[in-house]
Amino acid sequence: MNERPRIRGVLAPVVTPFLADLSPDPERLARHCRWLLSQGVGLAVFGTNSEANSLSLEEKKRLLSSLVEAGIDPARMMPGTGACALTDAVELTAHAVKLGCAGALMLPPFYYKGVVDEGLYRYFAEIIDRVGDDRLRVYLYHIPQVSHVGLGLDLVDRLLGAYPGIIAGIKDSAGDWDNTRALLEAFAARGFDVFAGSESFLLKNLRAGGAGCITATGNVNPGAIHRLSQRYREGDADRMQEDLDAIRAVFQRQPMIAALKQAIARYSGDPAWVKVRPPLVELTSSQASTLIEELERRGFSMPGVAFTSP
Amino acid sequence: MNERPRIRGVLAPVVTPFLADLSPDPERLARHCRWLLSQGVGLAVFGTNSEANSLSLEEKKRLLSSLVEAGIDPARMMPGTGACALTDAVELTAHAVKLGCAGALMLPPFYYKGVVDEGLYRYFAEIIDRVGDDRLRVYLYHIPQVSHVGLGLDLVDRLLGAYPGIIAGIKDSAGDWDNTRALLEAFAARGFDVFAGSESFLLKNLRAGGAGCITATGNVNPGAIHRLSQRYREGDADRMQEDLDAIRAVFQRQPMIAALKQAIARYSGDPAWVKVRPPLVELTSSQASTLIEELERRGFSMPGVAFTSP
Repeated sequence: MNERPRIRGVLAPVVTPFLADLSPDPERLARHCRWLLSQGVGLAVFGTNSEANSLSLEEKKRLLSSLVEAGIDPARMMPGTGACALTDAVELTAHAVKLGCAGALMLPPFYYKGVVDEGLYRYFAEIIDRVGDDRLRVYLYHIPQVSHVGLGLDLVDRLLGAYPGIIAGIKDSAGDWDNTRALLEAFAARGFDVFAGSESFLLKNLRAGGAGCITATGNVNPGAIHRLSQRYREGDADRMQEDLDAIRAVFQRQPMIAALKQAIARYSGDPAWVKVRPPLVELTSSQASTLIEELERRGFSMPGVAFTSP
Repeated sequence: MNERPRIRGVLAPVVTPFLADLSPDPERLARHCRWLLSQGVGLAVFGTNSEANSLSLEEKKRLLSSLVEAGIDPARMMPGTGACALTDAVELTAHAVKLGCAGALMLPPFYYKGVVDEGLYRYFAEIIDRVGDDRLRVYLYHIPQVSHVGLGLDLVDRLLGAYPGIIAGIKDSAGDWDNTRALLEAFAARGFDVFAGSESFLLKNLRAGGAGCITATGNVNPGAIHRLSQRYREGDADRMQEDLDAIRAVFQRQPMIAALKQAIARYSGDPAWVKVRPPLVELTSSQASTLIEELERRGFSMPGVAFTSP
């Protein structure tokens, strides 16, 4: 068993830039990753906000390799590797472990609905067994409002019992603090790291013994979110949380992924960033104007991001 | 434009057999396809009931090639080629066209929910443009209770306007006759073939000008379903529909895919057929007993299927 310290704190589900032909752009991605690391946040590449499920297995394998080749530290990466097809999940997870990634964030297979826990257990168990590497750290990804396949406490308990050390934690994106708290109460003492699915619950989660958060807006407001994770025991923590919430609310009023890319395009001066892959669409010019106006009214900035443009 | 006749009638979303290591079994699949063809039904391989989304792109490409190599007529095949990732859908669709398949049945990308029609339009348009082959026939796949991404009439209208001849029809699996009828009324006259998503609506659909049905139970009861499609104008059509409904109801009382495989295992004498890939699970022995008892009580049989066992 590899005993290196677990990844904790704030991670961004890194948005994926596309070239004009809709192929992923490894150079812009690496630049954005470097900026995020400079702001103190880790890299949950291939998350929901990364349009990961709009990328093929081969595109993801190549992108992950390209990041490591570009000098991005894999110990700061927790790529999303869950997939509908068991064989895809095994291949991408094994690739991530081989590259030295800190962990793998795993969606359940999300096409079939109403599947029983036994089937979900077999899916995760089969992946862990086939990858067969003690360095693997699995972070379950609970986002039932998107996947429509939830990961309940009984399933977590069974997986944690069968694979202690390997089952390392969860990202709880359900937006329901009661569920996050139940996970903490049931499993935190067994070395299970609970990440909130957004910074909205960052302070609550850290105070209750959670590991941090993995949040969309980590792509655009990483410094401030990271600061709260560092200073959550200090007197101004509640005020910091309020400031984070105000910025998050501006993004949440727009389609999130397109809005994140619009902000990066604007503050980096690199308009190519607005591109999304179908079925997503970029913001309309009216949505984009509203977003930028609201951000400027709040004095929002992305310090240093301009240096990352080509 | 290739003017060969369109595929019509009854198709089965062919269940996918697995070997002990969970890899797809091309030999058993080819045997089952031959039996289905002998019963008069076409082959919608890689449908929902095929566990297609539990297979990787490479597994599907290899399986499809293996079927053609085994002598299965591609003009009788309508493989499912839709995927969350645009690039996967393009590659599998192009492969199917190259092999001479009659059509491609396309799910929308189903991870992101609440996507706008413009994004879905771009997804299908991009696939058609990239495949770039006049032989392509796209059948849209509307199954909102599973995909949670529906295909509305406005979207169909726009696609049909932009790609007449290429957009060839739809499988409507929503289980809502009003929607199927609306599709027929709006688009049948424009050469758009509407397939019901199960034999429950086969008679209604054929009487209203539809093309047939693509149905799970086509895997186990193909002969009788095919007969109704041939004799729907005759006096005993309503009685035939009732008989089909009674058999379907037996399967619907169990998890469908596992039940189909259980019946094939039982009536072909080949127990290996029961295997499913996670997240699905095979029937419990109690479910299996109930299924077989209810089928035998109704005098159900799968004539000739035993000859297809190894």
